[in-house]
Amino acid sequence: MSVKEETLLLVAPVTWAGIWTAPIAAQAPELKVFVHDRDEYDPAAIDYVLSFRPPPGLLKTLPNIRAVFSLGAGVDGFLADPEYPRQVPLVRFVHESLAREMAHYAVLHALLFHRRQRNFDAAQTDHAWRQSFPPRKTEDTHIGIFGMGEIGCVIAAAFRDLGFPVTGWSRTRKDLSGVRSYAGEAERAEFLAGTDILVCVLPLTDDTRGILNKDLFAQLPRGAYLINIARGGHQVPEDIISAIDGGQLEGATLDVFDPEPLPPNSPLWSHPKITVTPHVAALTDPFVMAKSAVDGIRLIQSGKPLINVVDFERGY
Amino acid sequence: MSVKEETLLLVAPVTWAGIWTAPIAAQAPELKVFVHDRDEYDPAAIDYVLSFRPPPGLLKTLPNIRAVFSLGAGVDGFLADPEYPRQVPLVRFVHESLAREMAHYAVLHALLFHRRQRNFDAAQTDHAWRQSFPPRKTEDTHIGIFGMGEIGCVIAAAFRDLGFPVTGWSRTRKDLSGVRSYAGEAERAEFLAGTDILVCVLPLTDDTRGILNKDLFAQLPRGAYLINIARGGHQVPEDIISAIDGGQLEGATLDVFDPEPLPPNSPLWSHPKITVTPHVAALTDPFVMAKSAVDGIRLIQSGKPLINVVDFERGY
Repeated sequence: MSVKEETLLLVAPVTWAGIWTAPIAAQAPELKVFVHDRDEYDPAAIDYVLSFRPPPGLLKTLPNIRAVFSLGAGVDGFLADPEYPRQVPLVRFVHESLAREMAHYAVLHALLFHRRQRNFDAAQTDHAWRQSFPPRKTEDTHIGIFGMGEIGCVIAAAFRDLGFPVTGWSRTRKDLSGVRSYAGEAERAEFLAGTDILVCVLPLTDDTRGILNKDLFAQLPRGAYLINIARGGHQVPEDIISAIDGGQLEGATLDVFDPEPLPPNSPLWSHPKITVTPHVAALTDPFVMAKSAVDGIRLIQSGKPLINVVDFERGY
Repeated sequence: MSVKEETLLLVAPVTWAGIWTAPIAAQAPELKVFVHDRDEYDPAAIDYVLSFRPPPGLLKTLPNIRAVFSLGAGVDGFLADPEYPRQVPLVRFVHESLAREMAHYAVLHALLFHRRQRNFDAAQTDHAWRQSFPPRKTEDTHIGIFGMGEIGCVIAAAFRDLGFPVTGWSRTRKDLSGVRSYAGEAERAEFLAGTDILVCVLPLTDDTRGILNKDLFAQLPRGAYLINIARGGHQVPEDIISAIDGGQLEGATLDVFDPEPLPPNSPLWSHPKITVTPHVAALTDPFVMAKSAVDGIRLIQSGKPLINVVDFERGY
């Protein structure tokens, strides 16, 4: 019996291609894998695409693709392509490990702030025994999760289980035990007014681009802290800096930027109250990510419906 | 009706006395409170003592004290007094907020290591976009809780809920869902061999003094990480430094020292792979701590048995 050989095109930085190709080969040895910008390939022969942020216009040159798999939970890198062929399903990467890793990142950076660890680091540099008395109270430190999708709900539960009061905001109301849910524009101001540490995990859409700006910061309590692990496009860097310098924000942790990598001359790098990390909140085991795409391919091969398909109207 | 005025003696650094006297006055306004080294008082008139580490010999000069309340969970500061009047009950401070705050500290420092945040801090200093690929896997990072008392169990549950594999070691076996319990000397080596991040919350007794030494580190997997939030007396600082310099330990976070404050010339301050904090893991709301002592006094006043009384034979 002769089976048509199926092909997958990986569109990712060539230097890191092996991180993805090795686990794909291990899990789907029958797939022929091409790496864009490295291998010669026939566009008409490509069945599947695996990517995070493909060059705009590339996907429409592949006339026979059956599905596009995202290497991340966010798919704004695909939606930014005005020529994305919308008849082709775009599949988000959704896995409990991704949400868990993002929760770890958010907990780490919230605790760095909450526990004043940067002050202790500075005291250590001075060889100085400087306690910070009285401690900030956990009961009075309200965590606000901005975006209560699969990831946001896991993050909210992590903070709740650590004893913090937690609220969440999203377009539609969520039901998560012990976490108060605010929904829609009408309830956003109340959500923000009660948030001491704001964790942004919104999808990047036309509605949310630039949402982390001075008008929003002014709605937070004075001395609030911002953690952005969603997309650089959500934030207005100069507004973050001026909110911190004016005392409205006490600091920020930013994992995402527009563009990435963050240019070396960005003032964000050197601000003493901003922690910059290189988009690592959601770094997940490549084997797990590859498996997610392979699982999707298996669904297509067996004629079953795909899951986690993006709604282009909603934008996520 | 005339009631004898009851008195409480606070034995704590005079500069911080107000942190404790204010919440005591608020919760037990009928108590007369003296501060040792600040106020004149009649030793025979003292009913209760509140302290953390009283000067040896002081307590035996108070002939009529009915109970001694510790400001901390650990009571080695009292047991170090050979003249402690053992007919007087010594009451440990036990409160869920204490365990929770210590869990936050342990989670913060475990995640700082697990997520390589110090590397990202260094990259930020260089304005360099340096991802650390592949990430350390949560499933493969085994947290070992050394000492599974009330506090150890809360810390174990916190790590478990964050998705880490967790084990615990204690003198007697514990039953905590999802956490493997090792008990006694016979099972200690196996516990240590499977621990990537060791969190020490043991009581300080003759059995545990100096336990964090090179022989113990040699039983951990190479590249393990140490977090000590128990007592400085548990650790041998020169062994920690040589274990790190030799690669057996990848680093350590130390919150406790012997003596405290840690002297400015200690090499622990300046080691690049050691985080030093000034005994703040368990800093807890003074109101909560004062309430715990007041609750104990209320039990005595109403003729009920005290709880959380130290067993002098066991040492905790």
